[in-house]
Amino acid sequence: MSDTTLIGLGAMGTALAAAWLAAGHRPTVWNRTRARAENLGAPVADTPADAVAASRLVVVCLLDDAGVGAVLDGVDLAGKDLVNLTTCTPAEARARAAWAGARGARYLDGGIMADPPMIGTPDASVFYSGSAEAFTTWEHVLAVPAATRYVGEDPGHAALHDIALLSAMYGMFAGIAHAFALIRAEPIAPTSLAPLLADWLSTMAGSAHLTAAQLETGDYRAGVSSTLAMQVAGIPTFLRTAREQAVRPDLLTPYFTLMHRLAADGRGDEDTTGVVDLLR
Amino acid sequence: MSDTTLIGLGAMGTALAAAWLAAGHRPTVWNRTRARAENLGAPVADTPADAVAASRLVVVCLLDDAGVGAVLDGVDLAGKDLVNLTTCTPAEARARAAWAGARGARYLDGGIMADPPMIGTPDASVFYSGSAEAFTTWEHVLAVPAATRYVGEDPGHAALHDIALLSAMYGMFAGIAHAFALIRAEPIAPTSLAPLLADWLSTMAGSAHLTAAQLETGDYRAGVSSTLAMQVAGIPTFLRTAREQAVRPDLLTPYFTLMHRLAADGRGDEDTTGVVDLLR
Ligand SMILES: NC(=O)c1ccc[n+]([C@@H]2O[C@H](COP(=O)([O-])OP(=O)(O)OC[C@H]3O[C@@H](n4cnc5c(N)ncnc54)[C@H](OP(=O)(O)O)[C@@H]3O)[C@@H](O)[C@H]2O)c1
Ligand SMILES: NC(=O)c1ccc[n+]([C@@H]2O[C@H](COP(=O)([O-])OP(=O)(O)OC[C@H]3O[C@@H](n4cnc5c(N)ncnc54)[C@H](OP(=O)(O)O)[C@@H]3O)[C@@H](O)[C@H]2O)c1
Repeated sequence: MSDTTLIGLGAMGTALAAAWLAAGHRPTVWNRTRARAENLGAPVADTPADAVAASRLVVVCLLDDAGVGAVLDGVDLAGKDLVNLTTCTPAEARARAAWAGARGARYLDGGIMADPPMIGTPDASVFYSGSAEAFTTWEHVLAVPAATRYVGEDPGHAALHDIALLSAMYGMFAGIAHAFALIRAEPIAPTSLAPLLADWLSTMAGSAHLTAAQLETGDYRAGVSSTLAMQVAGIPTFLRTAREQAVRPDLLTPYFTLMHRLAADGRGDEDTTGVVDLLR
Repeated sequence: MSDTTLIGLGAMGTALAAAWLAAGHRPTVWNRTRARAENLGAPVADTPADAVAASRLVVVCLLDDAGVGAVLDGVDLAGKDLVNLTTCTPAEARARAAWAGARGARYLDGGIMADPPMIGTPDASVFYSGSAEAFTTWEHVLAVPAATRYVGEDPGHAALHDIALLSAMYGMFAGIAHAFALIRAEPIAPTSLAPLLADWLSTMAGSAHLTAAQLETGDYRAGVSSTLAMQVAGIPTFLRTAREQAVRPDLLTPYFTLMHRLAADGRGDEDTTGVVDLLR
C-alpha cells in the first residue's frame, strides 16, 4: 500500500502532491481529468475506488462538497481515514463526517489557510478538526505540505476557523480598498501608503485579544481606551473626508451604523465589542 | 519665552502636556475650563492671546476645527509656528493653513495615531504635513510625545494619512466582529480564536504592498495568486456559513458586491484591486 491517496489534482491538489513527492512520499493520485495526474511522478489510479483501496489515508481536495459526494459515491471506505481538504461550510463538514462514519471511516476535516504557491512553505497552515485519533496517526504526513492546527473533535470547527479568519480578512481588504481610494486622486504614491497601512493594521490586529477577553467576561468596558462615544463622535470626520475625496463610504457605513446603534442604546462608555452581538 | 504653548487640555492635550513635562520641557498651557490646567505643574495662561504670546511654537489640540477658529479668533499669530493636532478633514486642514498663513504664521497639521495612554510610548506616532521649515525647526520638541512622520507640504496630507489608516482599521474591526460572531454560539473560546485572528490579519496586512504596486502600474493581474474569479466562487461559502451560524453578513456584503461587479465586468483574472476604482 502507498502511504497516502490524494483525490483531486486541481491547483491545490497538485501543490499538495508536489509537496509530498518532494519530501519523498509516493502518493497514489486520482483526478477526474486524468491528464492533470499523468506527469506528477506519482502512481495514477484508474478509478476513485482503486485510489481509495491503495492507502489507509485518503486525502480529498475537490472543488466543493458535492464533488466529494459524487466521487466517493459507492466507494468502500471501511477502515479508511478520510481527510477532506475541500472547502465547505461547518454544517457540510459535519454532514460529511456522519456520512463517512456511516461507511466505517474516521473523518478529519481541513480548512486550508494558503494558496497553492504557499503550499510547502512555512507560511501555509491547515486547520483540522474531527477524529483526534486520525489526526494523531497522520499528523506527520499532513504536516509535510502545511503546518497543522488541530482545533477539536467537532468536524465543523476546522471550516469555522477557516471561514472566520477569511471573513475577517475580507473586512480588512475592504478597509484597505477604502484607504487607497481616499488617496487615489492625490499626489501620494500608493507604495508610500502601503507600509504605513501594513504596519498600522498589524499593530491594530492585536485588538482582537481585548475584544476576545471582553466577549468572555461580558464586560465591554474593561480595558477600553477609546470609548464608543468618542469613536462615534469621530465618524462624521470619516464620512466628510470620504465625500471630499469623492469616495463612496459603502464599505465602512455598515460598521458605523452598528456603532451608532450601540451608542443610541446608551452603551457609549463601552468598547465597540457590542457590534458582535448586533450581528446575531 | 517658554519653548512651547499648548492650547487644549482634554484627554489628549493632558497626555501631551504630561509627556513634555516629564521630558523637562515647560509648556505654557491654556484650556477653556481652567481647572483642567491647574495641577499639571505648567504655567497657565489667562487667555489664548497670552498663551500664544508666550512661545514661538503653538500647539493646539481641541475637539474640532470650529474650536480652533473660536479660540484663536483675533489672536495675533504673526511670526508663530502653529501646530494643529486637532482632528480635521484634509479640506479643513488646508483652509486652516491658509487662515494661519494670512495671519503671518507658519502652519503644520498633525494627525495623531495614538490614544492618550499611548502618548509618550514608542507606539505613538503623529503624521505631520505643511510647512517643512516649521517641521524641521520643531521636530525635536514634537518628537517627545510621539514619533513624527512628515508626509509633505500639503497641509491636508497629514489628515488624509491619518483618516486613511483609521478607515482601514474600521474595515478590519468589522471583519473581526464578523469572525467573533461566527463562533459566538459554539464552544470555541474567543481567546483561542484571537491569536489566530491577530496572526492571520498581521500576515495578510502585507497584501497592501501588492495592491499598491498594482495601483501604481495599473496592472491588476501582476502577482495575483488567487484570482477574483476564484475568490468570487468562494463567496457563497462565506454567506452560507454566516446563515448557518445565524450571523448577518451586512459587514461583508458591500465588499462582496463590488467583487461580483468586477467579475461581471470580465475582470475575473485580476486581483480584487479594481474595488478601489469602483469606490470613486
Ligand atoms: N486555490 C486556492 O487558493 C485554495 C485555497 C484554499 C482552499 N482551496 C480549496 O481547495 C479546493 C480545491 O481548490 P483548487 O484551487 O484545487 O480548485 P480547482 O483548481 O478548480 O480544482 C478543482 C478540482 O476539483 C475537481 N472536481 C470538481 N468537481 C468535480 C466533480 N464533480 N467530480 C470530480 N472532480 C471534480 C476538478 O477536477 P478536474 O481536473 O477534472 O476539473 C479539480 O481536480 C477547493 O475546495 C478550494 O476552495 C483552494
Ligand atoms: N482621545 C483620543 O484617543 C484621540 C486620538 C487621536 C486624536 N484625538 C484628537 O485630539 C483632539 C482632542 O481630543 P481629546 O480626546 O483631548 O478630546 P476631549 O477630551 O473631549 O477634549 C476636548 C478639548 O477641546 C476643548 N474644546 C472643545 N470645544 C471648545 C471650544 N469651542 N472652545 C474652547 N475649547 C474647546 C475642551 O475644552 P474644555 O476642557 O473646556 O471642555 C478640551 O480641552 C480631537 O480632535 C481628537 O479627535 C484624540
